[in-house]
Amino acid sequence: MSYQIIIGKQDFLESLRGKDASFLLSCSVSNTCEIPNLSQAGIPGKLHLTPTLDAEYLTLKEVRSLDNIATTPKGIPTPALITRAVHELKPFKAIEILNLGFEIEPQIEHFEIHNFDLKPSGNIVNNASINAFEVFQKGVAFAQEYQAKGEYTILAETIPTGTTTATATAMALGYNCENCFSSSYKNVPSSLKQEVLQKALAHINTSMDVFEKLSAVSDNMIIFNAGFILGLQASKHKLILAGGTQMASVLLVVNSILQTMGGELDTSKVALCTTKWIAQDNNSDIKAILEQLDFPINAYSADFDFSHSKSEVLKLYDQGEAKEGVGAGGALVYGLINGLDKNSVVQKVEQLLGL
Amino acid sequence: MSYQIIIGKQDFLESLRGKDASFLLSCSVSNTCEIPNLSQAGIPGKLHLTPTLDAEYLTLKEVRSLDNIATTPKGIPTPALITRAVHELKPFKAIEILNLGFEIEPQIEHFEIHNFDLKPSGNIVNNASINAFEVFQKGVAFAQEYQAKGEYTILAETIPTGTTTATATAMALGYNCENCFSSSYKNVPSSLKQEVLQKALAHINTSMDVFEKLSAVSDNMIIFNAGFILGLQASKHKLILAGGTQMASVLLVVNSILQTMGGELDTSKVALCTTKWIAQDNNSDIKAILEQLDFPINAYSADFDFSHSKSEVLKLYDQGEAKEGVGAGGALVYGLINGLDKNSVVQKVEQLLGL
Repeated sequence: MSYQIIIGKQDFLESLRGKDASFLLSCSVSNTCEIPNLSQAGIPGKLHLTPTLDAEYLTLKEVRSLDNIATTPKGIPTPALITRAVHELKPFKAIEILNLGFEIEPQIEHFEIHNFDLKPSGNIVNNASINAFEVFQKGVAFAQEYQAKGEYTILAETIPTGTTTATATAMALGYNCENCFSSSYKNVPSSLKQEVLQKALAHINTSMDVFEKLSAVSDNMIIFNAGFILGLQASKHKLILAGGTQMASVLLVVNSILQTMGGELDTSKVALCTTKWIAQDNNSDIKAILEQLDFPINAYSADFDFSHSKSEVLKLYDQGEAKEGVGAGGALVYGLINGLDKNSVVQKVEQLLGL
Repeated sequence: MSYQIIIGKQDFLESLRGKDASFLLSCSVSNTCEIPNLSQAGIPGKLHLTPTLDAEYLTLKEVRSLDNIATTPKGIPTPALITRAVHELKPFKAIEILNLGFEIEPQIEHFEIHNFDLKPSGNIVNNASINAFEVFQKGVAFAQEYQAKGEYTILAETIPTGTTTATATAMALGYNCENCFSSSYKNVPSSLKQEVLQKALAHINTSMDVFEKLSAVSDNMIIFNAGFILGLQASKHKLILAGGTQMASVLLVVNSILQTMGGELDTSKVALCTTKWIAQDNNSDIKAILEQLDFPINAYSADFDFSHSKSEVLKLYDQGEAKEGVGAGGALVYGLINGLDKNSVVQKVEQLLGL
């Protein structure tokens, strides 16, 4: 098998077999990442650089804004390596960067970088202070003018402490899934995360509308992509949300917006793809998140792990470190339904690591 | 070599090397399949389900309208396995289903299923009673509006007792090739087949025109695809007829229609690809059929067999059982001219069988 079904049926994904895809990387920074030890998605003290480095590495196989690729303190390399490995073996039709608020802009030429005049969003502990409706509208507008280079689109994300803002988003919107969200850590720093969430949710009250809530505790990636999904509904273009619980949170936002504004989501055009590490994670439950949606959705996980790798550091993924990001799960599914076998991807990742 | 030439030159096929293809599966039922023991293309008593199961398995790697894939009484699995194996290793750009009269519609979502308001055709023993000119015109019209997803198109078929209706078609049209037609059996039940053909041809007389003859003894697959081939001539799009003697019979029908209605076939846009099992079959002679055409045609067979397989049941193909169907030969040629090696296909088929 090249993938497993998390929820739904295989039909959506099978219909994409053999088709080529554009890859959109939504890059954003939430200043929540300034809180020490909340995320290991990058270099301590330099987490705000992670989206910049991921964008550079994915497109160029080189980091330019730092002297090495982003790894965790344990040395676990960014999942951008996995996405890059797939791109080398079965290239995406195009990679485009969505600038949803870089701290440092990536040094990339010749690739399309879409700018939306967005800055990193605030630390949710102090109120993220996002102009949420404007960010949402920018997502809708971008979708409406979007010219896909591939037959369908894979939408990925890189944003440090993104699972924390995703959890806060879901809780603020009233979903019952506090313990469903993933973390870049194997051993989640739950008391710290609890404290952050508690402080963030103190900014929320029941008289607020959806966008007011998002303004306080969400992030630009989530809000923009909720708009992008809805804006794309007018076309026939199919979209894969490549990510774990953060992308599930994007769908929760879509669900809440539809509850408020009316309308339906045609999910014959949207599905979610993530990694096996997310699908089988004992500390989170992406399926439970997706089951809270009012619409049916198809979600899949790539049948890929590093059990046959010679790299001990890569095997940490199988133990639950890092798990997902930079669209690794969606990229793996894309490769596997286009004829790549697992071993060739493992070998390519090892080669990228210089092994 | 990845293929052998049955007739013509390699130029046509070599020009397609490296290009991607759409795969069209024409699915049809002829109630001739109600005659016991005439075909082994499916489960006895449930042969009318074969096209449904083949369509489901090819697109979804799962049968939904029965609890297992179609095998012969000897346990030989449908050639859909071969086509699916190629699709996993070197995917077609799209798979589309042509509903030319299912008994049971396949349970498939997200794939394009073209409906032509056709019912299973009658048992040729009793007169198939097809509105042949209408079916033909539907094929022409579909070709004229056809938007190919790939750079060329592979047209395949699944219809139980299709070789019997193909033989009757050729004989009714006056071609001298009674013993040229293949069978899903290794040991052809020739006296039964003789009897069926004799009864069928009793409905034919020399005052009938081509379409009246087709109405009595042919099937929807043959008639529709003859129309499709002719309708596609207005475009530059190239077509591979993926099948054995049944697809050869489609060409005989095209030939007879051109004799009656005038016009020529530009065979720089059409060729036939089949399996080695058909090309080397001692009980049939596809080359002799193709030599009766007034136009030159290129035909090829895939250089593929199960001689290196560890599966005894797959090796029955090499002994002449099953032989072709669901475009297996065309799919193999597609894979082999796109870089697949024989062993990887054998292994993938074995894996699909759970070996």
